[in-house]
Amino acid sequence: MSSTKAKPVADSRAIINEIVLPNDTNSLGNMMGGRLLHLMDKCAAISAQRHANTVCVTASVDNVEFQAPIRGGDVVVIESQVNRAFRTSMEVELNVWAENPKQQTKLKSNRAFYTFVGLDDESRPVEIPPIQPETEEEKERYDAAAKRREIRLVLAGRLGLEDATNLREDMRAAIQASPSHS
Amino acid sequence: MSSTKAKPVADSRAIINEIVLPNDTNSLGNMMGGRLLHLMDKCAAISAQRHANTVCVTASVDNVEFQAPIRGGDVVVIESQVNRAFRTSMEVELNVWAENPKQQTKLKSNRAFYTFVGLDDESRPVEIPPIQPETEEEKERYDAAAKRREIRLVLAGRLGLEDATNLREDMRAAIQASPSHS
Amino acid sequence: MSSTKAKPVADSRAIINEIVLPNDTNSLGNMMGGRLLHLMDKCAAISAQRHANTVCVTASVDNVEFQAPIRGGDVVVIESQVNRAFRTSMEVELNVWAENPKQQTKLKSNRAFYTFVGLDDESRPVEIPPIQPETEEEKERYDAAAKRREIRLVLAGRLGLEDATNLREDMRAAIQASPSHS
Amino acid sequence: MSSTKAKPVADSRAIINEIVLPNDTNSLGNMMGGRLLHLMDKCAAISAQRHANTVCVTASVDNVEFQAPIRGGDVVVIESQVNRAFRTSMEVELNVWAENPKQQTKLKSNRAFYTFVGLDDESRPVEIPPIQPETEEEKERYDAAAKRREIRLVLAGRLGLEDATNLREDMRAAIQASPSHS
Amino acid sequence: MSSTKAKPVADSRAIINEIVLPNDTNSLGNMMGGRLLHLMDKCAAISAQRHANTVCVTASVDNVEFQAPIRGGDVVVIESQVNRAFRTSMEVELNVWAENPKQQTKLKSNRAFYTFVGLDDESRPVEIPPIQPETEEEKERYDAAAKRREIRLVLAGRLGLEDATNLREDMRAAIQASPSHS
Amino acid sequence: MSSTKAKPVADSRAIINEIVLPNDTNSLGNMMGGRLLHLMDKCAAISAQRHANTVCVTASVDNVEFQAPIRGGDVVVIESQVNRAFRTSMEVELNVWAENPKQQTKLKSNRAFYTFVGLDDESRPVEIPPIQPETEEEKERYDAAAKRREIRLVLAGRLGLEDATNLREDMRAAIQASPSHS
Repeated sequence: MSSTKAKPVADSRAIINEIVLPNDTNSLGNMMGGRLLHLMDKCAAISAQRHANTVCVTASVDNVEFQAPIRGGDVVVIESQVNRAFRTSMEVELNVWAENPKQQTKLKSNRAFYTFVGLDDESRPVEIPPIQPETEEEKERYDAAAKRREIRLVLAGRLGLEDATNLREDMRAAIQASPSHS
Repeated sequence: MSSTKAKPVADSRAIINEIVLPNDTNSLGNMMGGRLLHLMDKCAAISAQRHANTVCVTASVDNVEFQAPIRGGDVVVIESQVNRAFRTSMEVELNVWAENPKQQTKLKSNRAFYTFVGLDDESRPVEIPPIQPETEEEKERYDAAAKRREIRLVLAGRLGLEDATNLREDMRAAIQASPSHS
Repeated sequence: MSSTKAKPVADSRAIINEIVLPNDTNSLGNMMGGRLLHLMDKCAAISAQRHANTVCVTASVDNVEFQAPIRGGDVVVIESQVNRAFRTSMEVELNVWAENPKQQTKLKSNRAFYTFVGLDDESRPVEIPPIQPETEEEKERYDAAAKRREIRLVLAGRLGLEDATNLREDMRAAIQASPSHS
Repeated sequence: MSSTKAKPVADSRAIINEIVLPNDTNSLGNMMGGRLLHLMDKCAAISAQRHANTVCVTASVDNVEFQAPIRGGDVVVIESQVNRAFRTSMEVELNVWAENPKQQTKLKSNRAFYTFVGLDDESRPVEIPPIQPETEEEKERYDAAAKRREIRLVLAGRLGLEDATNLREDMRAAIQASPSHS
Repeated sequence: MSSTKAKPVADSRAIINEIVLPNDTNSLGNMMGGRLLHLMDKCAAISAQRHANTVCVTASVDNVEFQAPIRGGDVVVIESQVNRAFRTSMEVELNVWAENPKQQTKLKSNRAFYTFVGLDDESRPVEIPPIQPETEEEKERYDAAAKRREIRLVLAGRLGLEDATNLREDMRAAIQASPSHS
Repeated sequence: MSSTKAKPVADSRAIINEIVLPNDTNSLGNMMGGRLLHLMDKCAAISAQRHANTVCVTASVDNVEFQAPIRGGDVVVIESQVNRAFRTSMEVELNVWAENPKQQTKLKSNRAFYTFVGLDDESRPVEIPPIQPETEEEKERYDAAAKRREIRLVLAGRLGLEDATNLREDMRAAIQASPSHS
């Protein structure tokens, strides 16, 4: 049985360092996006399991932007942590860098949010312990996670824009600032 | 050099059928999300390359929701096509099913949108030929692609909500329908 | 239990599109034959399972000729279908192309025939539903499948040439046309 | 440049021992045929390269029959050797066993013939040194290789049955023995 | 060119978290030793490259003992760091744990020492910057590394026991304590 | 149940031939050490299982030195055999060569010793049949295995140097030969 006592963010941290091999790259020698999404999912799953202490499966992946390309031979560094738990789901944040030890560079490649659900042995969702944010940064991420969850639900068609209470204020301000509003 | 003459959607269609093997599954015997995101990226890249006739790389992945789990031993069926080309990028739509030949079932697993950019041999973006939508369905996808592009840009912080012209009307309607509007 | 009602060829069609990665190639940069045979087997197995609705295993592979080499970075396109079912086995036809989206070429790489057997949960062969050929091309393949089956059985030493009724007429004609016949 | 001095069969021998892992097996727990064809190709390529001392590529695979299933956890034992060289091609014979160290069994799984072509750095076929068969068994295989080559060429449509001089006598005898000949 | 200014241990730290998949396990469901040695080598190579800022290759692996078995589904946690640099080589220490998030256990699996050499673009050894140990623990590891290096050289037959100055005192004490010494 | 009747070394011999593929190499094009350690473990496990007729797991790996680099495209040749069985463990010797068929070279890459333990279905160690060495070389390896076992136990901290009876004489001689002994 998974406990529901609040747990700190730190308990869920996970890190992957991986050398980009030839089969991970396209014909320009850069890491393919799908391969990176796969590695990120593995790292996020470990964070989710460390928080929920049960088998966790990917429920959704937010919009992911690939910025700087990662070259063959580089080291991909992935760090993940649980930002916030909802009743049966968790938001896991991932930060990804491309490191080149020879050139002594480390460039941010992307930041992404995966949502995981914890399951019991019969594949039924289980209740997830809450996150207890401690630092300022953890508190900001905790708050932002609620807005991102509404975006997810709206984009998935499971929440009307009119019920997205966290988002509504942002939208109202945006529309009032728009040229055609007058 | 890639041509800029409009091309039909059909030219970009790609299909992958793949049997889910033990290493693709978690300890409950279901396909891991990251493995599926990887396969989807491969299929989408083929569609993008068929349309743009150059090397194409993943620029972003929209919000992806995993619905029905895919079991070990199932056949994953992935179909992809280019919905619309913008100046140097394309939206690729993916539809994914889990097929079980023995039980004669084929369940929709998810639908997703990947954005690709075409590159030349020096990794510089190239102009992408436009899509010429032909069927009603293709036209609807072509129109929806413009809205999704605005959502992508807004979520990435590269477009203010006030400049998202396709989205504004939807938002205005949503806010007017919301209980706190009165 | 698998039904024995005749099914159309179309129900068994399967397609694989796959990008040729560095590890798939030899030191000249061409796809290795064994890697292709493996992919072809996966595609054929899906066709067999779609027709027989049970687990299917490879019983034999006919003579396969590799024609045009497939280059690293190319897309391998494999299409398969069941040509004909015998009592507990099926002939699956595979057609393979090497596609280069950049050069806009698509070359036929080979055509092959794999034979599959359907098995029940105790690994015993099950009866396979017959194929109902519909188009002219499907009927030709259906007829040719019987001759190929005799060649298979003769080559495997399980059928004497004197009992290969479909082949005998061809051979008789060949011998009469041969210079040493007189 | 590759030499054309005759070489013994023994110089080309290659052996692979490999444990069958979960990802090599189907849902009944048996090794998939395509995975085995892939391993056999690797072993045969090593034999071909040891004989021809140049990069060798698969030109064709003869009819392969899968007999006893190979179980997950078994050791696959593959042995290969060059039976005979023709001008620019070689026939490689493969023998495959499934070994279970725990049950102390070793069952013959199949025997197959792959044809390889040697290539120079510009991918042009090179002349292959002849084989000097030494034992009785090697001589029998050397002779049989010529017949199998004719079957290959006939099946590939590159040799008329009337020109298959090694096969013609066998066929004539077969037809005379057939009931409908009288 | 790699610098020879002393660097802290912390700069070389690397971490890998990896879920043990079915193909990593033997028929008892435990991770195979060779698979773990492979992962450990990847992690150690990243540490070596972070310290030496050049391509690093494995020169030797010390005696490795596998203690607690790691189960399929567990998370393998590997942490590595450079203990000491010699002229052109480095000792990398690895510590490995098997973590089971569900049972909330984390067991030490083993500790090992890999030696790496840094190479330039022509594969010639390059001079490695020294390590500046800072904590007590880092200093102990720094000192112990010199003894382990002598054991390595003695075991490899490249150093006579009589020249192993760090080891000699230990051995002398051992012999004096031995029953047959009197 | 595994028998305890002495068995010859030859029964345990295993051979792996494997072509080094792009993903096995580092950015200088040489095979990575960890990949080789993995292959060696697979080969050694087969030898151990052939001798013990039960599932065998890696207990420890002795000091391994990597000598000549193995190039991408080379064939790695690994040969293994059981040198000696102790009560529940075995020493497996591995010899590794890098073969380049084109340049007709075969260079010794390394020699290593892995220790395996045989397990029953409940993962309990089983008694291993003794080895009956037959040739002079087998007898020398049989004797040396006892010394190596003491080194292993001393390095693992499970045997005091004062109880390492096979090693003591070597050490005493070494110390007497050392300059500081006088």
